[in-house]
Amino acid sequence: MSQIYVGCELEYVTASPTSFLFQVNAAQTNRQCTINENLSVSPGITLTTLDIGLHGNKAQRCFVQPGSFCLYYEATVQLSPEVDFANELSERHFNELPSCVLPYLNPSRYCESDLLGNFALKQFGPSPQGLVRVRSICDWVFNNLIYVSGATDSQTTARDVFVQRQGVCRDYAHLSIAICRALGIPARYVCGYAVNLQPADFHGFFEAYLGEDWYLFDATRMAIAGGLVRIATGQDAADVPFATYLGSALLKSKKVWANLPQGAPAIVSQPAQAATSTA
Amino acid sequence: MSQIYVGCELEYVTASPTSFLFQVNAAQTNRQCTINENLSVSPGITLTTLDIGLHGNKAQRCFVQPGSFCLYYEATVQLSPEVDFANELSERHFNELPSCVLPYLNPSRYCESDLLGNFALKQFGPSPQGLVRVRSICDWVFNNLIYVSGATDSQTTARDVFVQRQGVCRDYAHLSIAICRALGIPARYVCGYAVNLQPADFHGFFEAYLGEDWYLFDATRMAIAGGLVRIATGQDAADVPFATYLGSALLKSKKVWANLPQGAPAIVSQPAQAATSTA
Amino acid sequence: MSQIYVGCELEYVTASPTSFLFQVNAAQTNRQCTINENLSVSPGITLTTLDIGLHGNKAQRCFVQPGSFCLYYEATVQLSPEVDFANELSERHFNELPSCVLPYLNPSRYCESDLLGNFALKQFGPSPQGLVRVRSICDWVFNNLIYVSGATDSQTTARDVFVQRQGVCRDYAHLSIAICRALGIPARYVCGYAVNLQPADFHGFFEAYLGEDWYLFDATRMAIAGGLVRIATGQDAADVPFATYLGSALLKSKKVWANLPQGAPAIVSQPAQAATSTA
Amino acid sequence: MSQIYVGCELEYVTASPTSFLFQVNAAQTNRQCTINENLSVSPGITLTTLDIGLHGNKAQRCFVQPGSFCLYYEATVQLSPEVDFANELSERHFNELPSCVLPYLNPSRYCESDLLGNFALKQFGPSPQGLVRVRSICDWVFNNLIYVSGATDSQTTARDVFVQRQGVCRDYAHLSIAICRALGIPARYVCGYAVNLQPADFHGFFEAYLGEDWYLFDATRMAIAGGLVRIATGQDAADVPFATYLGSALLKSKKVWANLPQGAPAIVSQPAQAATSTA
Repeated sequence: MSQIYVGCELEYVTASPTSFLFQVNAAQTNRQCTINENLSVSPGITLTTLDIGLHGNKAQRCFVQPGSFCLYYEATVQLSPEVDFANELSERHFNELPSCVLPYLNPSRYCESDLLGNFALKQFGPSPQGLVRVRSICDWVFNNLIYVSGATDSQTTARDVFVQRQGVCRDYAHLSIAICRALGIPARYVCGYAVNLQPADFHGFFEAYLGEDWYLFDATRMAIAGGLVRIATGQDAADVPFATYLGSALLKSKKVWANLPQGAPAIVSQPAQAATSTA
Repeated sequence: MSQIYVGCELEYVTASPTSFLFQVNAAQTNRQCTINENLSVSPGITLTTLDIGLHGNKAQRCFVQPGSFCLYYEATVQLSPEVDFANELSERHFNELPSCVLPYLNPSRYCESDLLGNFALKQFGPSPQGLVRVRSICDWVFNNLIYVSGATDSQTTARDVFVQRQGVCRDYAHLSIAICRALGIPARYVCGYAVNLQPADFHGFFEAYLGEDWYLFDATRMAIAGGLVRIATGQDAADVPFATYLGSALLKSKKVWANLPQGAPAIVSQPAQAATSTA
Repeated sequence: MSQIYVGCELEYVTASPTSFLFQVNAAQTNRQCTINENLSVSPGITLTTLDIGLHGNKAQRCFVQPGSFCLYYEATVQLSPEVDFANELSERHFNELPSCVLPYLNPSRYCESDLLGNFALKQFGPSPQGLVRVRSICDWVFNNLIYVSGATDSQTTARDVFVQRQGVCRDYAHLSIAICRALGIPARYVCGYAVNLQPADFHGFFEAYLGEDWYLFDATRMAIAGGLVRIATGQDAADVPFATYLGSALLKSKKVWANLPQGAPAIVSQPAQAATSTA
Repeated sequence: MSQIYVGCELEYVTASPTSFLFQVNAAQTNRQCTINENLSVSPGITLTTLDIGLHGNKAQRCFVQPGSFCLYYEATVQLSPEVDFANELSERHFNELPSCVLPYLNPSRYCESDLLGNFALKQFGPSPQGLVRVRSICDWVFNNLIYVSGATDSQTTARDVFVQRQGVCRDYAHLSIAICRALGIPARYVCGYAVNLQPADFHGFFEAYLGEDWYLFDATRMAIAGGLVRIATGQDAADVPFATYLGSALLKSKKVWANLPQGAPAIVSQPAQAATSTA
């Protein structure tokens, strides 16, 4: 059980009336509990909370008049990570997967799992199945990609990342997801906050469905184990932008943080591994 | 109110134990009612009905031993198409869209709406909004694509179709959907049966969200108005294959049909237009 | 007959011994004559002049020790543009094209002419052939692309530009070339200097083969007519980078200029049109 | 020194007057000598021989009236393969490459070497350079691709092949070329005839520049060593189609053969390796 203090501050200048949809709040799950949450906007306008999609995401919608606009969010999040799961977490056969996870086998905008079947089978087919296999996927992605800020953009997909072997956290997650799906392992994208991320920013990681639950993985190895806080879940990053808007907006500054409480014992960063689960 | 007799017969040979997921049943909606439905498999094995995804789809799952396998489906479907909607069906502003339709603004595997923004705005920005605009998108797609069987495959996306200007029904739908989303109009893929389709096959068309409901469109103009029967709904074709399997299967034959009852008055094919709505 | 003063200054820092290949010298053609040319490097090392490829290009090769490295080039170029060609410049039938221009019908790295056939035929098939048609291609490209610095990069191809409808000069040229080739008009890429370019930089434009010669076009309309100075010619930009290197080099600054002599009469910018020809 | 009997028969039906360009004749090089060559067309029309491009290719051009058209080619080709080259064939440094081979470092339509740099360096960077490295590239391509007829088409590029890990001979060649270029090894595409190819067809392979010459490689391992007969050379397959036409033509049948003379000693197929060289 650990507590993490997370938050962000987003400053915009809008040139015309603009509709915003924000996904920045820490999610409420059976393993993640938000306490002392505060979301405020300046100038003070109405925020409407929406439930979006099949992933249980929440979003905040608002309509902003031209001028300066600032959103501030902070929360303390209590995590109950699953700590005692063993390597024997197994993959479920296609015939036994619960129907609610089946959509996460489909290819999506940034995860063209349909194209990577031959590679995935050759590279990871011989591996022991289950948690061991997902970990070996994360290791392969970590070892074969170069983390390069600015080398990719919002159009970059798993295919591109696989070819060019470089990217940032969302690219690592997309490629990992695509490989999992190509092997018949349901996988989905998670955006969130991550303790110790350098430079501080929103983080992208992923979940794979093993045994009877979803388990978190981070192929970048950038966040500390037990330091991932979920905001929202999707097929891929297309589903969970931290902000969507219609109108004319310029993001002037973005600050994101995720810290352990002062005095907390240091948590040593560890190789990519399943860390927390959610119902 | 019209009745349509639909069905399909799929014959496989499987070389190993194979899990199948079929999406061939006509959907039950407030505008589409299935009567006299019959789904059978040979040899006789257990079919499990699953609810899949956020689209309200049903699927049939089964586990097949090696050998010949045949699925037979037939049903009479009663449609209550919305016939009196007027051209003034409007687009809803981003700020007013119900949250359940927001995911259908996101780009997806086959509909890279994020890439087509400049084109969509230049070509359809000046158009009157609402039903008129979606119809003009359908007209543009119809007039600028060449229907060529075999020119595209399961990897072909809206981007490819836009460049190469050819494809089949699913390509027409994907491009139409991508343009709608690029303009802020929620749009989604529908697979189904279509009366008078030549050659007979499953059909792909799409829905756009206008006013307060989803409306069907078919940019191919191949099906008769009022002759579209929904099987399933998805972000794009990736969500609604008529069959998915894990194992070793060969599709030996596929027959698909959709007919008006004998003695029914002839229905004249019409330009692409909104035809039926669903809740 | 006009004179243009062109040049560039490129400053590098190299961290290891580095081989460079520069293409910055104004070409010598029957319509372009270089006078008072000066190419110098600091520190003073040997430059070897190479003839490259089938395009008649010259390049300078050198081997640079770690440290600072600067290349300075300036020249006065005398142009003898073809001024009296008429609209009746015709396209040559495939069967009559000289063999030396046939390679310029092939698709290349950045000009996938093989993908744009349907579009090209529908859009420009009905046009009168010859100069009129190439001009209408330039007009279409100018009118349908948005000039956006930074929206594209060195991987962007004509296909991407066609989809996203934005780019910079090289993207305008690539799309124009791809359309020409798709119609059976040999076309090739030209990099060079351009008078009045804002901001000053190397420029990319193209040539189409009409009548019995190559004619220059610039779909961006950014350079003044008669103000294009050729450096090198290629299938596309892949053939004519201003600098290629093997080693570790950082381009610290780049200055490029192309000016009319002081006191020269002002030249008014004109719509895209054939401007000069080369043997 | 070996003799190979090669040839092809191409039958077309043309619906309108059609211009053809054929590249089917065995090339004349310092290691490949054509004897008893016969090229005939029916009906008997004029064939014009053209020199095309920078690769020394020959092509036959003709203009065909509507109806049936047949081209028949046969020749006996004498090869003088380089048999005694040793593993120490080295790579030439970028700074020492002859200018005529520099264009073969550039990316091209089907060989996006610019995208594969990270992969190539990680996978083949540690390898000994020279012949050993090119052989290890061929081995990797052979071991990581699945040969699947019909899985790829004329749009498939090295990038696609790298992702999907399947293709036919031209795909194997394109990927090998792209990797070579990414490592600074000039490489180019060769189409030709190949002894023992199953099924018989034109073949695609490639050349890498090592030491002071070009050396042939075939990553498919489908042809026997010493059994490759060059027709034409290009940046990639875009430069060397066996037939190009403008008009309306349907290829009704294609026969291609390459046989050792009767009574010749059996030649055992061998792993991919450099086989012959050309000036």
